[in-house]
Amino acid sequence: MSQASIHKARYDRHKALVEKRLAGLVKDPVPCSLYEPLKYVLAAGGKRIRPVLLMLACEAVGGNARNAVHAGAAIEILHNFTLVHDDIMDNAGSRRGRTTVHIKWDTNVAILVGDELLALAYRELLQTTSPNIQRIAESFTDGVVEVCEGQAYDKEFETRPGVTVNDYLLMIEKKTAKMVSVAAEIGALVGNGSTKAIRALRLYGHHIGLAFQIQDDLLDIMANEAELGKKIGGDLVEGKKTFLLLEALQRATGSDKDLLKELVASKGCPPERIPEYKKIYIDTGAEAAARRRIEREINRSKQELRRLPSTRAQAVLEWFADMLLHRTY
Amino acid sequence: MSQASIHKARYDRHKALVEKRLAGLVKDPVPCSLYEPLKYVLAAGGKRIRPVLLMLACEAVGGNARNAVHAGAAIEILHNFTLVHDDIMDNAGSRRGRTTVHIKWDTNVAILVGDELLALAYRELLQTTSPNIQRIAESFTDGVVEVCEGQAYDKEFETRPGVTVNDYLLMIEKKTAKMVSVAAEIGALVGNGSTKAIRALRLYGHHIGLAFQIQDDLLDIMANEAELGKKIGGDLVEGKKTFLLLEALQRATGSDKDLLKELVASKGCPPERIPEYKKIYIDTGAEAAARRRIEREINRSKQELRRLPSTRAQAVLEWFADMLLHRTY
Repeated sequence: MSQASIHKARYDRHKALVEKRLAGLVKDPVPCSLYEPLKYVLAAGGKRIRPVLLMLACEAVGGNARNAVHAGAAIEILHNFTLVHDDIMDNAGSRRGRTTVHIKWDTNVAILVGDELLALAYRELLQTTSPNIQRIAESFTDGVVEVCEGQAYDKEFETRPGVTVNDYLLMIEKKTAKMVSVAAEIGALVGNGSTKAIRALRLYGHHIGLAFQIQDDLLDIMANEAELGKKIGGDLVEGKKTFLLLEALQRATGSDKDLLKELVASKGCPPERIPEYKKIYIDTGAEAAARRRIEREINRSKQELRRLPSTRAQAVLEWFADMLLHRTY
Repeated sequence: MSQASIHKARYDRHKALVEKRLAGLVKDPVPCSLYEPLKYVLAAGGKRIRPVLLMLACEAVGGNARNAVHAGAAIEILHNFTLVHDDIMDNAGSRRGRTTVHIKWDTNVAILVGDELLALAYRELLQTTSPNIQRIAESFTDGVVEVCEGQAYDKEFETRPGVTVNDYLLMIEKKTAKMVSVAAEIGALVGNGSTKAIRALRLYGHHIGLAFQIQDDLLDIMANEAELGKKIGGDLVEGKKTFLLLEALQRATGSDKDLLKELVASKGCPPERIPEYKKIYIDTGAEAAARRRIEREINRSKQELRRLPSTRAQAVLEWFADMLLHRTY
């Protein structure tokens, strides 16, 4: 086996433990108007990045990953809470190839399912046995607060004029990176890591989280449609203020700038104009800037890892960072 | 001063401490799309029953009420989270005489404000210093889970045929009584009470909570409109399956029964028919049954108090139970 496939095997082993917790989460599924859609959400799968990072972080400070399964499942349930509520707010029709809860059932059900997921996330988290339990719960809660703030900024940006790349970075720091950072930090806390190790893993998560979101923006326009599993250019069609759009707006001049402003003013473009905007992203250097930024965040995340003792888990975390850098979907 | 006014003074002192925490909760109100409506919600006032009971329960086991202020504020913030989300689901236009969040702003804002309130509730709770912090957070979380389940039942009952008084009691146990019970239990945990005392206070809260909700149903039809501060008979107009309606349905025969079934089938009645249904509630003995049930729950709550040592806080809790029994708004 190659190193990569050994790393992947460990990732998958951790992932399987989380899946098992999630599958057994609801013992008594009544009232069914609540638990049927809730189980539907948890069964949708996904990469389960946050819980696996949490478990690896626990191992990287010398802890046993099995002690971190509850916290891992908790952070995945929490992530699903944000997806269900965000999908209502964005009126998204599908998620992971399946109809969203507020469409398949209704908005009231989706609100309540989200709330219940958040409660179950805490219930799962509190099953963790650790002298650090109060700090663990505080970190988790800071994550929830910032995710809400990030989502509020995201919605504000839809109508606010003059949003900058820096505004965008603050938003994704809260909406995406914070929770990845919290995952790694909680893993280190469950593993009883040193203050230095906890900090290093928190920052690892922070940089990974930023890279992940900018990569997401990049893939939306640059990926192979079949590989990505959804239409290319969705962000352009919706007029979403992504890293690429905001970077291009700052860099463009002349007719390119006019076209970008038009996209913002019209809140999106028809699908046939996607190639035109893709060209602007490349010509202005916005695409290259995104790639550089992703690489910088990944390198910083790997620098943080070097502060930790050399272990198998540390190697898996490094492999994971590189995998993110080169992901195509 | 009479005993009652001494008790009331202590209630008000505790309430003032909670109000102070709530008023200072948001230090940095950005993003404003989130924190402006959130502060609006917390400033709406209210009786603050749950936090005051929590603080009194802490004192009743020998603890210092000031140590319970964070947990008290937390349970009030949590209560406000349920109000904001319930108002969306019920499409309620006003609450405590003010426009609801989803109407004054929009549904997306109200979803996010509710989520953030829940997160802030945990943040506040976790500021509690107690060796029981994990149990406190678990009890709090059980409360959130059951409130969601109760709300799910409440929405299910709107369309489900054959709802019984027992179904209703299960629903209000989850939707209302559980959180009052959790408040009293957490107070006892913060005060480091004995297992027996914790149990007694939990049950005190449970019975008080049930009595409170049935009293609410009763006041909706029997109160003085000016005193209640809202229109009489709102539950009948909406066709809500209250204790009174379900009890009357089980007791009525002949034309009374037909009229009640018609109310359910038409999902409510015009306001001018309220007196007719009020008469049925009285004639069938449903109103008397509600009064008996309230009295029974209040007596049980007071029985639980007798298991505690005789203290000022215990006397205030007893006074509070009697006040609930005789409340007119």
